Amino acid sequence: MKKSPLILLVNDDGIFSPGLRFLIKICKKIGRVCVVAPNKDQSGKSHAITVDQKITFKKIAYSELYSEYSCSGTPVDCVKLAIKKLLNEKPDLCISGINHGANYSISTLYSATVHAAIEATIEGVPSIAISHLNYSNKIDMSSFTNFLDFFIKKVLKNSIIQGVTLNINLPDLSYQNIKGVKLCRQGKGNWIEKIISKNNKNEILITGHFEQNEDKNDTDIWALKNSFISIVPIKNDMTDYDYIEKNKAIEYDF
Amino acid sequence: MKKSPLILLVNDDGIFSPGLRFLIKICKKIGRVCVVAPNKDQSGKSHAITVDQKITFKKIAYSELYSEYSCSGTPVDCVKLAIKKLLNEKPDLCISGINHGANYSISTLYSATVHAAIEATIEGVPSIAISHLNYSNKIDMSSFTNFLDFFIKKVLKNSIIQGVTLNINLPDLSYQNIKGVKLCRQGKGNWIEKIISKNNKNEILITGHFEQNEDKNDTDIWALKNSFISIVPIKNDMTDYDYIEKNKAIEYDF
Repeated sequence: MKKSPLILLVNDDGIFSPGLRFLIKICKKIGRVCVVAPNKDQSGKSHAITVDQKITFKKIAYSELYSEYSCSGTPVDCVKLAIKKLLNEKPDLCISGINHGANYSISTLYSATVHAAIEATIEGVPSIAISHLNYSNKIDMSSFTNFLDFFIKKVLKNSIIQGVTLNINLPDLSYQNIKGVKLCRQGKGNWIEKIISKNNKNEILITGHFEQNEDKNDTDIWALKNSFISIVPIKNDMTDYDYIEKNKAIEYDF
Repeated sequence: MKKSPLILLVNDDGIFSPGLRFLIKICKKIGRVCVVAPNKDQSGKSHAITVDQKITFKKIAYSELYSEYSCSGTPVDCVKLAIKKLLNEKPDLCISGINHGANYSISTLYSATVHAAIEATIEGVPSIAISHLNYSNKIDMSSFTNFLDFFIKKVLKNSIIQGVTLNINLPDLSYQNIKGVKLCRQGKGNWIEKIISKNNKNEILITGHFEQNEDKNDTDIWALKNSFISIVPIKNDMTDYDYIEKNKAIEYDF
């Protein structure tokens, strides 16, 4: 008999995050679940890995249908640990999240929620990152249950083409007020930092707010502002092909 | 009188790294230099930022022509600190490196050398990441002096189009054995991890070696193997436009 699909769950908010717990509940009804998540908040850790330092992990639960581990490393370390050590088979899907807070536009680069999913993609596992625009840990995401159940089953059935990670952001609305789903591009935006001096002038805290640089209707920025769920397909080839096309002459200068 | 160009230097190996020291020497002959670099090794930190935690920095040198600061944060934090707090004017160029070790193919995603440069690009500063394929701190890079001097002056004169970071890797050869410069794309490759158990079975060290998945002559992998300096133009828009083109129908499923 064919086994039910194996879903690897990871996040960056940490193993006790309500967004992850909500996702576990949904995925347990779809297939076998393995959770490997950081033992502390790892927000903003992007694609960071732990180099030349020990990582510890702890088994929290273990059965054929459900296993759970916490890990001292980054979200990307968690994915490596899961795929290269803890699991005996390749997962059918990796889902990272659900993050408490937005991960669209330029935040794609800083987000460890997104990059944990990208790491799974690099390892040949179809992957999704899911973030909710509300940063509060108390937000009730339950109205998205049916949508997520349907979406995850759909991805498991049709898979995602190799090398692509789907970066999904959920607007801060109840699902009945959502207008639909938009497949869109990463819109242009910036974080405007504020550097706050602390106890003495050589101690600082970097804070900031997001500022959009465009609002075209094919961007994640527009989709989320207009009550759509945004899905941005992300690739791990960062090459700017247009630049190569236009600047080949540089090779002859040396 | 027009001031000489202002060059911001950063790295991920840490402020005392010989690769950074070598770069400082070259850049001091070209313009004004400001160094803001981590106070410890931050290899593999990718685009990580420090969230909700204090960062400290220390002034090491300060004059109109040359200033130097160490910082407890990540390489991306260093760039934010430099541009948003320490400098009174926007740098004309940011150079990250010279890293001791390769940063091509999939390593582009893990590398903080590359991502510190990307952060400067996001802030509107033309940026280059430079890595040397030899991982040793003792490698003599001096044969590349004239090439780097010429290249940096060229970039300062012609600039780089907005939004692009140039990711440069230098082969582990003396410059006289270099065949030229190749403008290329990020080749496909993977890190094959080895998970080493330490003192007890819940303590691990993740190590690995790079394995190329292709060897086409338009890739950085090919260029470096064939004694060329590789230059890959990197963009911070990670969208997979081909995927959007082919999968628009997904929007009608919900």
